[in-house]
Amino acid sequence: MTGLADEIRSGDRRALARAITLVESSLEDHRREADALLANILPLTGGSTRVGISGTPGVGKSTFIEALGSLLTRAGHRVAVLAVDPSSVRSGGSILGDKTRMEELARDRRAFIRPSPSKGTLGGVARRTREAMLVCEAAGYDVVIVETVGVGQSETSVADLVDAFVVLIAPAGGDELQGIKRGVMELADLVVVNKADGELLGTAEVAQADYAAALRLMRPKYDVWTPEVLLASSKERMGIAEVWDAVIRHRRALEESGDLLRNRERQALAWMWSEVDERLRGALRNAREVSRLLPAVEADVRTGACTPSAGAQRLLRAFDPESVTWVD
Amino acid sequence: MTGLADEIRSGDRRALARAITLVESSLEDHRREADALLANILPLTGGSTRVGISGTPGVGKSTFIEALGSLLTRAGHRVAVLAVDPSSVRSGGSILGDKTRMEELARDRRAFIRPSPSKGTLGGVARRTREAMLVCEAAGYDVVIVETVGVGQSETSVADLVDAFVVLIAPAGGDELQGIKRGVMELADLVVVNKADGELLGTAEVAQADYAAALRLMRPKYDVWTPEVLLASSKERMGIAEVWDAVIRHRRALEESGDLLRNRERQALAWMWSEVDERLRGALRNAREVSRLLPAVEADVRTGACTPSAGAQRLLRAFDPESVTWVD
Repeated sequence: MTGLADEIRSGDRRALARAITLVESSLEDHRREADALLANILPLTGGSTRVGISGTPGVGKSTFIEALGSLLTRAGHRVAVLAVDPSSVRSGGSILGDKTRMEELARDRRAFIRPSPSKGTLGGVARRTREAMLVCEAAGYDVVIVETVGVGQSETSVADLVDAFVVLIAPAGGDELQGIKRGVMELADLVVVNKADGELLGTAEVAQADYAAALRLMRPKYDVWTPEVLLASSKERMGIAEVWDAVIRHRRALEESGDLLRNRERQALAWMWSEVDERLRGALRNAREVSRLLPAVEADVRTGACTPSAGAQRLLRAFDPESVTWVD
Repeated sequence: MTGLADEIRSGDRRALARAITLVESSLEDHRREADALLANILPLTGGSTRVGISGTPGVGKSTFIEALGSLLTRAGHRVAVLAVDPSSVRSGGSILGDKTRMEELARDRRAFIRPSPSKGTLGGVARRTREAMLVCEAAGYDVVIVETVGVGQSETSVADLVDAFVVLIAPAGGDELQGIKRGVMELADLVVVNKADGELLGTAEVAQADYAAALRLMRPKYDVWTPEVLLASSKERMGIAEVWDAVIRHRRALEESGDLLRNRERQALAWMWSEVDERLRGALRNAREVSRLLPAVEADVRTGACTPSAGAQRLLRAFDPESVTWVD
């Protein structure tokens, strides 16, 4: 294990890929190896700027990340790009799976691109991504970008992984503006109106003003940071540096106020508890009696034949603690 | 138990109060009685219009509910007012505790006011309120208003209790507008700018326009309903009927589209699972070994001395399933 840890430290890309495969594995002994590896490298982690980037399909996440990543590697940064894609959980497919979506960055020796794990629950996928992030930090990547396509609760999971959460939106007006998923605005530290070029520039500026106004109606996440709305064009590589500058200003403000540290502590505890909950619930669901009862209980609760509390009671009573196995 | 159920049906206020005290009790045998009672009355539940009303302290929730409630009872409705107040969990205090806050409604024979249970976790408080709501429905109240002061996750819990979620805001301009808690706008089916009278009318109209614009930026919760922003003055009893009219239009739209039923089914299942999770976690926390380990594990996870996954492992390993007791 120390061997692999050393190879990672030395910047060996194959070792890095192998280590991530290890933390992504759900086999019990891989899990043990992974835990040992993580314990080993933990002192080397935490040093990166962790940026989450979210946006609906078609908004141009890949081209934006390609533009941002290339800018950063040219400036001497080492950039890891990870992904949380709950749809891959179902489809087996995976965003970033097709590296040609980020041709330039994929060829960049200072960049490392890793698709979303395509097995497990969202919680499982996000946990593996979190651990992949730690491995990348140990490998010396000082910027970790976590991409997510806005499905289900994935934005919340990713926001809980990173220091700064960036929401990409398309330039649009009127009804099209209703594109932003409820709950996402509240997570945004930074909103970027992408594709702000050519004919769309005017529309983009209107969207910028609208979102800035909307954000002013909400209590900011931090006393020391008010979310900003910026314009960018990945195609013409305009405004990308400004986005990064905002990320840095955001980080500096949170560092000085102590929010960055508090966030990471809160995130770590939240992750521990969500994993505890998920595995407890998994153990319950997998208990033979419970899985036998579940369809009937869910049907009764759905139709109102029994109260949610009574339903919970029935499941918990059927839960034979003997049969507990802490599966992922 | 059938006795109490019959008394509730007959509209006996004392029986209603007694039944709610029963569902609020955490004593094991009270719990059993409560479950029996709920099973007994379940066929009589579900008939009310369930309205959640949220707003920060000082926005005028009580006077608004008093105005709305009185309007409804005059129109022949029977109105129950319940509350979810997580702060009461800590302080032992409780909103609606002081009925003089709703003098008129408190004297109204067609209204029933119940303070927030002041024991248990938010989940526990919300669950008891949910069951109190069912009891009120069985007692023939056709409108149930659930008030919450915006603390922690209480809005989310209440939104998961009701059919329509109303957010009260104060008329304000500029920076004051940043008063609305992030995440609340996302829950709103209806936003009411309260205190829209006298000198504040102009400011209220500006706030109305601002919030309407902000809501247009977010994808609506339903295809069949776009959140509305209305003006009201509880003091002058203006705009109250319009708020109720919107609640009714909202309900009708959701009924026709089938969203109302789907919501309630989804809510019931979500409640069952959150109760299962809460009680599983409670059992874990209360296991002797775990409670002994917990401080050290949380400290290690917080400081990064171990990963959240490793922390979760340590807790789950220390969890002696033998010692499971499904405490609330």
